[in-house]
Amino acid sequence: MDTRTNFAAGQLRQYIEQIERLEEEIKALNSDKSEYYKAAKGEGFDPKIIRKVIAQRRRSASEREEEEALIDLYMSALSGTGFSDGGPQT
Amino acid sequence: MDTRTNFAAGQLRQYIEQIERLEEEIKALNSDKSEYYKAAKGEGFDPKIIRKVIAQRRRSASEREEEEALIDLYMSALSGTGFSDGGPQT
Repeated sequence: MDTRTNFAAGQLRQYIEQIERLEEEIKALNSDKSEYYKAAKGEGFDPKIIRKVIAQRRRSASEREEEEALIDLYMSALSGTGFSDGGPQT
Repeated sequence: MDTRTNFAAGQLRQYIEQIERLEEEIKALNSDKSEYYKAAKGEGFDPKIIRKVIAQRRRSASEREEEEALIDLYMSALSGTGFSDGGPQT
């Protein structure tokens, strides 16, 4: 292989190894997650319900963030125009 | 809530928060992974092919592991019996 091909091969190897390393870490974390679910089940908590509670908390969090982003947007719209003087014309 | 309910609530909160923390970490690692794919694409490597190469390497690795496990199993079977003397009877 010439130098350029060698360089490209080295780069490719790096990308692939980094992605594989990340996948290993993700796999390990997923297995930790299963352990927590199993432990919770052992204490009498229903894993299916825990899953739903977590999904619901995630949903509420993202709705809250969206709401805050909109508040910021409206606030900056108000401060950027003459709007803040008297509200929308009636 | 009485003490027992309080205790259970605390336990539940711990499980849920630990699982949520793991999910956050997994999300972050997945986003790192996307970054690597994006960077590789920027260098002219096809992400779809990289994905297939990684899957193929994973498959070969697991086949190799399986093969090694079988070799160990056969070897220990041999050392555990009189088998190693002369091989199977013919």
